[in-house]
Formats: sequence, C-alpha cells, structure tokens
Amino acid sequence: MKNTFGTSVCVTLFGESHGARIGAVADGLAPGLAVDEAFVAAQLDKRRPLEGLGTARREADAFTFVSGVKDGKTTGTPLCVLLANTDVRSADYAATASLARPGHADYTARCKYHGFEDGRGGGHFSGRLTAPLVAVGAIAIAALRERGIVIGTHLKRCGGVSDRDFADLDADLAALNTAAFAVLDEQKGEEMKAAIRAAAADGDSVGGILETAVTGLPAGVGEPWFDTVEGVLAHALFGIPAVKGVSFGDGFGCADARGSTFNDAFRAENGGVVTATNHNGGVNGGITNGMPLVVQLAVKPTPSIYKEQNTVDLESGENATLVLKGRHDPCILPRARVVADSVTALALCDLLAQRYGTDWLKTGGA
Amino acid sequence: MKNTFGTSVCVTLFGESHGARIGAVADGLAPGLAVDEAFVAAQLDKRRPLEGLGTARREADAFTFVSGVKDGKTTGTPLCVLLANTDVRSADYAATASLARPGHADYTARCKYHGFEDGRGGGHFSGRLTAPLVAVGAIAIAALRERGIVIGTHLKRCGGVSDRDFADLDADLAALNTAAFAVLDEQKGEEMKAAIRAAAADGDSVGGILETAVTGLPAGVGEPWFDTVEGVLAHALFGIPAVKGVSFGDGFGCADARGSTFNDAFRAENGGVVTATNHNGGVNGGITNGMPLVVQLAVKPTPSIYKEQNTVDLESGENATLVLKGRHDPCILPRARVVADSVTALALCDLLAQRYGTDWLKTGGA
Amino acid sequence: MKNTFGTSVCVTLFGESHGARIGAVADGLAPGLAVDEAFVAAQLDKRRPLEGLGTARREADAFTFVSGVKDGKTTGTPLCVLLANTDVRSADYAATASLARPGHADYTARCKYHGFEDGRGGGHFSGRLTAPLVAVGAIAIAALRERGIVIGTHLKRCGGVSDRDFADLDADLAALNTAAFAVLDEQKGEEMKAAIRAAAADGDSVGGILETAVTGLPAGVGEPWFDTVEGVLAHALFGIPAVKGVSFGDGFGCADARGSTFNDAFRAENGGVVTATNHNGGVNGGITNGMPLVVQLAVKPTPSIYKEQNTVDLESGENATLVLKGRHDPCILPRARVVADSVTALALCDLLAQRYGTDWLKTGGA
Amino acid sequence: MKNTFGTSVCVTLFGESHGARIGAVADGLAPGLAVDEAFVAAQLDKRRPLEGLGTARREADAFTFVSGVKDGKTTGTPLCVLLANTDVRSADYAATASLARPGHADYTARCKYHGFEDGRGGGHFSGRLTAPLVAVGAIAIAALRERGIVIGTHLKRCGGVSDRDFADLDADLAALNTAAFAVLDEQKGEEMKAAIRAAAADGDSVGGILETAVTGLPAGVGEPWFDTVEGVLAHALFGIPAVKGVSFGDGFGCADARGSTFNDAFRAENGGVVTATNHNGGVNGGITNGMPLVVQLAVKPTPSIYKEQNTVDLESGENATLVLKGRHDPCILPRARVVADSVTALALCDLLAQRYGTDWLKTGGA
Repeated sequence: MKNTFGTSVCVTLFGESHGARIGAVADGLAPGLAVDEAFVAAQLDKRRPLEGLGTARREADAFTFVSGVKDGKTTGTPLCVLLANTDVRSADYAATASLARPGHADYTARCKYHGFEDGRGGGHFSGRLTAPLVAVGAIAIAALRERGIVIGTHLKRCGGVSDRDFADLDADLAALNTAAFAVLDEQKGEEMKAAIRAAAADGDSVGGILETAVTGLPAGVGEPWFDTVEGVLAHALFGIPAVKGVSFGDGFGCADARGSTFNDAFRAENGGVVTATNHNGGVNGGITNGMPLVVQLAVKPTPSIYKEQNTVDLESGENATLVLKGRHDPCILPRARVVADSVTALALCDLLAQRYGTDWLKTGGA
Repeated sequence: MKNTFGTSVCVTLFGESHGARIGAVADGLAPGLAVDEAFVAAQLDKRRPLEGLGTARREADAFTFVSGVKDGKTTGTPLCVLLANTDVRSADYAATASLARPGHADYTARCKYHGFEDGRGGGHFSGRLTAPLVAVGAIAIAALRERGIVIGTHLKRCGGVSDRDFADLDADLAALNTAAFAVLDEQKGEEMKAAIRAAAADGDSVGGILETAVTGLPAGVGEPWFDTVEGVLAHALFGIPAVKGVSFGDGFGCADARGSTFNDAFRAENGGVVTATNHNGGVNGGITNGMPLVVQLAVKPTPSIYKEQNTVDLESGENATLVLKGRHDPCILPRARVVADSVTALALCDLLAQRYGTDWLKTGGA
Repeated sequence: MKNTFGTSVCVTLFGESHGARIGAVADGLAPGLAVDEAFVAAQLDKRRPLEGLGTARREADAFTFVSGVKDGKTTGTPLCVLLANTDVRSADYAATASLARPGHADYTARCKYHGFEDGRGGGHFSGRLTAPLVAVGAIAIAALRERGIVIGTHLKRCGGVSDRDFADLDADLAALNTAAFAVLDEQKGEEMKAAIRAAAADGDSVGGILETAVTGLPAGVGEPWFDTVEGVLAHALFGIPAVKGVSFGDGFGCADARGSTFNDAFRAENGGVVTATNHNGGVNGGITNGMPLVVQLAVKPTPSIYKEQNTVDLESGENATLVLKGRHDPCILPRARVVADSVTALALCDLLAQRYGTDWLKTGGA
Repeated sequence: MKNTFGTSVCVTLFGESHGARIGAVADGLAPGLAVDEAFVAAQLDKRRPLEGLGTARREADAFTFVSGVKDGKTTGTPLCVLLANTDVRSADYAATASLARPGHADYTARCKYHGFEDGRGGGHFSGRLTAPLVAVGAIAIAALRERGIVIGTHLKRCGGVSDRDFADLDADLAALNTAAFAVLDEQKGEEMKAAIRAAAADGDSVGGILETAVTGLPAGVGEPWFDTVEGVLAHALFGIPAVKGVSFGDGFGCADARGSTFNDAFRAENGGVVTATNHNGGVNGGITNGMPLVVQLAVKPTPSIYKEQNTVDLESGENATLVLKGRHDPCILPRARVVADSVTALALCDLLAQRYGTDWLKTGGA
C-alpha cells in the first residue's frame, strides 16, 4: 500500500515539497462527521514554526476540501484535502542538489527511484507532507472527541530537558491541546526552548521524545497477533519523518522492571474493570483494556544542519563536503506533536471502524 | 488481516496453548528455497527453555510441514507447519480460570470475544504460538543467508545487566547464532542468568531489551510514507508477546543527540556508498541504505509471577486475589531472541519480494 | 495476499491434492457462532461425487477443527480445519507427469514455480482444496441463516440443459439446500444427468452455469468504487477452479436490454423500500439494496478428459500427445454448487463485518 | 480499501460529479515511465461523448498532474491527477433530488451514508469519476506498450448488434486504438449507432458487451487461489459503473462446451509453449499462460432515461413518479471502452509489479 495506511479508514498522501500542491485522501470516515474549518486551521497553526524556534519558511497553509465534504459534514466518500505550496525557494537546493544530505532520504531515494525522484526540498519525503495529514487528522480528532475519546501530546523530552510526567490526564490533555508549546511544566518548556535556540545558534539541531495519551477508548479493540493496537499504531507512526522509536506505557523502561512492579492489577469499579496502574499503556495482548493509551515517539534531531558534513555526490559518485543552505527547523518536536495527535487519531479511527463498523464514529454504541 | 502479517510474503498463525495442534501458514515464499529440517529443529531448540532459567513445560516441538514443501524445497504455494501440544496441564489453570491475570490478555480477550475464547494457558495469546513462527522463520533465515543477508539477536539488556554493544558485526552475528544464551559478553551473560534466577527465586520475573542486527540488505527497499521499513517491521514485531517498544539504530538514544553527532556521513567506497557511522540503523526516510539494519525490542517482564496479585473475577465481576499456579518463564528473552530473528526475517522477505518480485529470494539479482 | 481472500473475515487455503493433509484457516469470524459438525459433514457430503456422475476417488472427508472452536462454538480467533487425503493414487499421474494437461495449470504452474511445484493430481491447484473451503463455509452459512440470510445455488444450465428460473425464492432455496442434485425442475435435472453420462461415456466432459441467490441481506453494504459487492464477490468466486465468468442479476442478458425494461422501479413497502423487479441482482452502485443478491458463475467443462490431446512435454520441451489416466469428474457443477454457496457466504461475512463490525454476525443489529 | 484497488500498484479515486475537482492518486508506478500529456489528452478524448450519441454535458477535461511527475516522467512516488468540473447544472437535479432514480445508487447511497452523501449528478458514484481513471490509466497503457504489452477494447455487442470477433489481434488492436467508435466491423458500428439513436429518440437507453484483449503478457503471473488474474481484474473492472458481468476467454459460452472442444492444446513453438486455441482467454489456474488475455464486460443500459418511472421519495418515504431531467448518455459503451482499457492496464501493472518487482515496468526483464 506504500503511501497509504489503514484498512477500514485509510489515508493516502501525495505531493512534493516544492510542487504546486500537496494533499491527502482520507477514505472510510463515517458519514456525518463535523468538518470544522476553524478547527482544521487551528490544528494547522499548531504545526507552524514557532517564532525563533523553527524554519523561516512561511506557508499560508490554506486548505481546500475538494471532495467528501458537504454542508460542513463528511459525506462518507473519499475526502481529499489540497494545500498549495507558496513559499518555495528551490534555488537554495540547486547548488547542492546532487549531494546526499546525511540523515535524509536523498541517497535512499536515489537507490529506489534511480534519479527520477523530485529531490527539491526533500521532494515527497519532506515534512511538508504532514500538513495535509494534520488537516484530515483534525476531522478524526474532533470525531473521536464527540465519542468521548481525547488525544494529546507533550514534549516529554527535548534538547536534554524532561517535562513532568502525565498526572491528572483530563486536565493535562486539555491544557496541551490549547498550548502553543506543548509541555506540562512551563518552566521545563522554557528550558527546552533555550536548548533549541542554543543548538540553532550552533548551526545544529536537537531531538527528543513525544508522548501521546488517549483517554476514553473502549476495551476490546485490536487483534492478538500482528494487528495489535501497538503494531497498527507503530506502523503509521513510523511514517512520521524522524521517528526512530515507538513504545507504549512505560516503554523501554519495562526492560528494568520486575513483573511484580510492572503488572497492572485489575480492580472492579463502577460495574466495570480498571487497572490500579498503567504500565502497559492501555493495551494487553494487543487489545485495548479501557485504560488510557500511552505511546512515546523517539524523534531524532533534524538532519538539516548548517555545519559542514562529509557526503557523496550522487552524480559523480565522489566524496564531497556539504554546507546546507535553505531554511530548516533546529528541532521538529514543537511542530510534530500535532502530527502525532493526527496520525494516532486516524489509526484509532481505523481500529474502531474495523471493530465496530463504519458508522460507529458517528453513532457510537458497541 | 488480524492474525496475519505481510503483503507479498504473508504468515498466518493459528492454535491455542492447550489445543491439540498449533501451526502457521507462510504464503508467498519463493519456490525452490531449501527446507532443512535439521536447521528448523535447531532453531526450535533455541526457543526451548534453558535449564533452570525457564518454564518446566517441555514440548517435543516435533513439526510437520503438511504443505508447500517437496523434496526438501519450498514449492512456492502455501507452506503449512503443524506442531502438537503434548505437555499440557490445563488443571493448573482450572482453579483460577475466571481470574484475569494482570499483564495478560485474559481481560481484553473477554472484552473482545465475550467469553467464547479458549482461556486455558493463555489460549491463542500464548507464547506457545511463537513455535510455528520460528519453524517458518527458519526457512526465511536460511534463504536470506543464501542471498548474503545475515540476522542475529542478542540480549542487549536483561535483569538490569547490559551486554556489550555490537562491534565486529559479522563475527558477532556468527557467534550469536550458535550461542545457547545470546550475549556478546559471556560474563555479562552469567550476570543476567543470576538476575533471572534471583527473580525466579522471588516468584518474580524480569524484562529486558533484545537487539537484532541484519547485514547484507540491498539499499532501496521500503517506502517513504507508512510502508517504511521501520513501520513494516514494527507492525510485525509488536506481535511478539511482551514487546512494548521497537526502535531502530540508536533508538531512544536519538532523543538526546544533536544532528551533528547523529547524522551518518556518507562516503564513497568500492564504487558504492556507505556511511561512516550507523546511528540511523540502516534506514533513511523509511528505505534501506545498505548499512546494517539494527532494531531494538523492549520486552516487559513475564506477567506470570507467583506473588499474590489483586485482580477481578471475570465471572462474578468482584475483586479477587490471584496466586498463579502453572509453569512459567521468569524471563522470556533467552527464548524470544530466536522469535525476533524469525519475525524480522519473514518481514524482510516480504519487503524484498515487494521490491524485487516473488522469485528474488531464490534467484537474487536486482 | 495470494491464497487468501477477505479483509475483515479472511480465508487462507493450503495443501496439495496428494499431500497428507489439506486445510483452511478462517480468521475474523465473530466469536460464539455455532460450529455444528453434523452440518459441516452434510455440506461436505454435497461436495462428494454423485454415483455415476463423478470421479471414483472416494475421500472420507473426515475433518478436524484444530483451533478456533471451543464447546461447539467459534472462539473468534483463527479457526483451522484439517482434512486428510486418503484415497490417493499418484501412480496414475507418474507416467504423464511431465506432460502439461490442456486446460489445467500444469504449464502455468511451471512458469510460476519453475518446477518446484507439486504437480501430482494438480497439486495445490486441485479442486480437492475446495473441501476445507466448504468446511469453513458451513460455519458462515449457518451463521448467516441465524441472521436471516439464506443462500442457495442451482445448476442453471448444464450440458446444454436449462433449469427453470428462480420463482418463489424462499421455497426454492429451501428445496435446493436439501437436494442431492441442485435443480429446481427435477425433470431438467434428469436431462442434465443424462448429458453428463453421455459426455462421460465419450471420455469427455461438460460445463454449465451455477446461479446463487441470497435473501435477507441488509441494504447499504459494499463500496462505490472497487470494493463493490460485485467486485469483492467476484474476486473470491473466480478462485473456484473452472469458473470463467461471474455476473449479477440478469448478467450478460443486460446487454440486450433497454433502460426502460432493465431499471428496477422502487416501491415503498412496510416502511421500507423494495424494487418491483430485480434485474440488478440486489446491487446498485456496488452496494446492496436489500433485494435478493443473484450471481451466476460460468463453469467450464472439466479439463480432465480421456480423449487424446496434443500438448508439450515440460521436461523436454517437445510436442507430445497425452492420454489421461486417473479418476476425474465429467462435470464439476453438481459438486461445485456447495463451493459456490460457501465462498459466497464467506465473502458476505467479510462485507458484513466490514460494514457493521466484527460482532455483527453473532449479535445482529445495525 | 474501499475506493482503492491494487496491492503493489494502487489507484484511489475521489470527487463528486458536481464538486469543483475530481481526481485520482496512482501509487506504486515504477519511476521513469513516460507521462505523455498529449497521449493522456487523446485517451480522455476517447471518453468524451460522441456527437449525437452521448450526453450534452461538455467537460473540458483539462488535467493537471499535481504530484509524481517530473520532467515528463513518473517519479515513482504517488501521482495525483486533478480535473475540474466546469459544465455543471445542478439545478437539473434539484427538483427531483429526493426521488431515488431506479437503477442508480441514490437509494443504496442513502442506506450507507444516511443522507450525508452528495447526491447531485450521482455524486461520488458518477461516471464522471472515470475521467481521472482514464488519465492515470493512460500512463499505464503507454508503459505496458513499452514492454510489448498492448491493450484494446471493442464494442462486441451494443443495442442488439454484434461486432465481428477478434481475428488478427495485432491489427485489430491497432485499429481499435485509433478508432473513434471502437468496432472491428464499421458496418456493424453504423448499425449500433442507429440503435443508440433510436433508443435516445425513445427517451430510452441500451446496453451491450465490451471485450478487451491484451497481447504480450508474460506467462506465470497471478496466483492459484483468490488472487487469480481473473479475480484481481474482475475486482477492479466491476468498479466501472454499469458493469454487471465479467468473463474471460469464451466467457459464458464455456457453459455449453465440452472439454474436448474447450481445452486449449499446447504446442512447442520458437522455444516456448503456445496454445492452438484460446478458449481460456490466456489464463489457466488463475495464472497467465502467455496467450492473449481476453475479457468481456456486460454493461447494462444507462439507468438515466427520460420515460416516467415509479420510485420512492427518500425524504417522505412515499411512492412517487420520476421524470428525469439533466443530460445523459443513451449508451455508455462508446465512452466506457477506454475506461475498460485503463482499468485493465492498471490492474495488470499491479499484477506484474507483484510478480517481478516495482521496477519491472520500466526496466523489464524477468
């Protein structure tokens, strides 16, 4: 399926960084879901570079739903969103076009597409393509919220600084979803920003960890072998550029735990079953248990840096040195958090539609 | 697709822990691949509990290829392997059958299957089902080796003890693939075993990290968005019971790196292109770059422990306490490493067949 | 997916005509569906050769559900059925093993599997593999009936003789489902049998048309473009050996109609909507309209005949003449009708599960 | 996958008849394929209504490749084509908007989309969406031709008139691919046109049969069970609006044949194997045999007619009578033939890429 993810709800991305238009097709969304253009715009705003923290490229991010929407609601047929690329400066790339940028996909694209690829600005591999993903993700996020399912992401770690852990999840998610810089502890946020600025001043970049939590998911969604909730989400989330790790619950911390401390004890509550702790991140045996889903993404430092780097000229095959021009983010996490929300939301819509049918997202019931 | 993974090479698992037979169907393997029953048996041996380190359950692991094999070679049509369950003691589970074991899938299975599931010994969720996965994985591992692609896994961390990092990868993989206990540093291995025994003596269990490396992969395999090498592998690897995290290259360590230290510089070598370092684990932009693929799996401590735990009786809905009987592994990593090899091999066969066609695994060429 | 069909409910076939065992894995069936072994046996009986009308090969068709069934009900996890091959006479094939049988897959299998295929008795291509398909199909047929969805197939045409058209569909389906020879007009059935016997006496074979009808389907199932009800069913039904055409409603008869005679007028009835006629076979725009689904299968004459045929020796590449030995059906339709029922039932379970979720087949409701 | 078909080469359709833009995304096409805009335009021209034989709606069919094309060649990343709808007269539909048009998807769309669908001009179900399918199909057709694979379609039957059978296939396909009205016998073509005009004069419509042939396919493509060439093609072809039957080779004519006349004898020729006849239409056991692929499509008469019809008002639930306005084709076959070519080409590209890898369409070799 290549540039598509999903089984019952599917998303296909198309476009290139410096092409005229980029877009996404979302298919399988229930009919009748609200398409609130103001909310879509607000979500796209979260993806825009923060003043002094991100690239100088300024895209208007004007979007058009060319299909699948009528009278402000999804029709249930394929929804296509288009965005124009307006602030393109391909000339920045021209001088070094044949030099493979370390950490980027230039070399692997060449191996796969044999030089026919559009390399300008990263072409189809550009993070620019996450914009249409955020646009269709906004519809999924809003629809899930109508069913009592709330998603939020914070910068758990960035530039060597850690945010505090999730505590009161409802309040934390509410705060994150209106925050310009998605941290739970503002002071830590300021330290992160300082670290980003310091790296930028060095012509360098920093990485970090995004952590997404989802409340309100019903228990019993996902499959035992292979179409596990973890596997389906990870499949989609690794599509976000720069993600090098995906973990759930306590994540890699489970490695140092003992069963007696890691197991989440069950308890009867209000006629249902809850767990006393949530080390497993809301998933047992690949299937949701009704507790909050918690997922971490390891995000590598932006490969676009301004220091001189050794590389190879893909035309001549000779060694070369590269000093990048162009406008780049010294850290992608502040912008990527809404991409994490969006991809998580879309993948969950898919799992829910597979479990409860194609109307569930609109009508609920189980 | 539920209990299946793969697009061009697909594997479907079936069976329950205490059923008469379990098995797997592997479809899409190239015709003419060697099916060396001695090697299959040797791989299954690696999955057997080590004396004093694992469950007392002793399965003969006799296997039969009931289809897809002729004269010791794959036919190219669906290959089904069957194994019998012989050492089953369902009585161990009977007394506590209605008590949801914390960390296990009993409760989530109930939410999904409404009580119709076979819960004995974990039923379909049991790690027992990794045996047929190892059996078909053995064919994939051997076929990849014929194409110069070698896979190996070590216990990178276990019970709080870390193995040394990969160094001379060819030698390390060769050593791991004949080792009974898969570590690179034997002394560290002894410390891990001591930690496992200590936990077992406590009626407890430990987790850890498996790290798999693959050499010899061609560059240019995988897709940019969503069917990335990372996403496709993670989708399959999260199907291995107890895996809570999947990462590539430096994994979550990328979070604290800077671009200038994390980027892998390219260098022309022998008419091709290599990287000076391999922080990205052999994948750029979702596509292999020809360097070794490196993937880590976070493995939680076995949820089956002998300490009293709080839980819920799924029949009555009341709170209850559980003291497990039955035979369980205090640590799954020594056995799971060959499962990691097997799933990685099968998922790579799938990616390679999608890229180069269904005969490639037999005939090579690009 | 190769030897698998389905998205939410999937079936994978494995085995060879002369292997020890053949089987099928059905995944995604709702938990709690009745598995009535007597009904499964009865369905397999319908697939057995009729005295004097079919092959002399006599298979016991003893079946075992090795997974996915507990206490006579589906568990919801993968259900595997195994059947043994007992009456195998590979020697019949040995003498002519390298001669490509015209109309069979010997030559195309060679092109695809390069000689590694198991050719005995048609190997994996053998109609013998429809037996496990019928076994798992029986569960689907029984489950659909519980939801008020009834399936039946008649020999619409065979050996140049036409059965009468469907009339009172409920009565017709009831009669077909208990008939040994599936026709609506017994006299026509006798004429068909005579035609089959006449062909057999000539060492020849005959083809025909199967027509399947399904009552009770809800309206609103299927997708507009590509995952149409027609497309999904046809994809699966063309998997039945010897099927060369699939059509719906009036089928190819629509070619000579005018819109004014072919359109099915709508009418309000009992608070719902029905059509006055059913030329479209229960599907408009790829989606069920609540009227009976009607589908025809063109079935070619069995390619195994006893007349001398020109062919090629696949070992030497030379022209050769072939006189088949072995035991073959002079007409496959009397046995294939239950295969048509089974595949139709399984594909409909898939479409219904995609539309209404994985529990619908057990619990109903929309 | 809903509005998508294909596994390795996939096509997704989006848009509505009266929306601003419609389009298609084709993913998985090999990099470096020629994108000849003049040929794309020529193919779209074949889809335009013929003077006096089709709808008065006149769409400019201006197309834009917004992604996946660089310097006149495919990049290998998702290719999106957009077309604008310009000649829209939604007012024609307003008066009868709530009346379900017999033979159309209005009622089934309502059952599936609950009134949220865009019903104007058939919305997403409109034949208008075949335009982007033809645009991306043109690239596939041209690429296949570079590999020696040629496709063509004729009106085998229309309005009760039959064209002659295929004879010299190379010459016939060449003639069809430049013909304005795709018949092999011009005199029969005139009779068909007269029949169409006569129906139109009656406010009525006619159906027919399209027959597509493909030469130059390699042997050994397709799968034995379920992903048969027939099944994969039929799955896609039933997505073409108005198609009610798909058959191969002699099609439903096989029903009246005997094995001795239907079997295609093999013969050694030029170091390869050919068949003396082609009753099986180039496919044995689901796999290509190297002979021409021949497929027939039963196309129902256009449901849009100007005679009064009985129907139901979907808002009130009451019986009603409908007299259609708007601009409609009295026969879709003259325009649909290029759609048949396009879908066949794209589905074959998918099967070939699955078999030989993602570069094959550009580089060939097996």
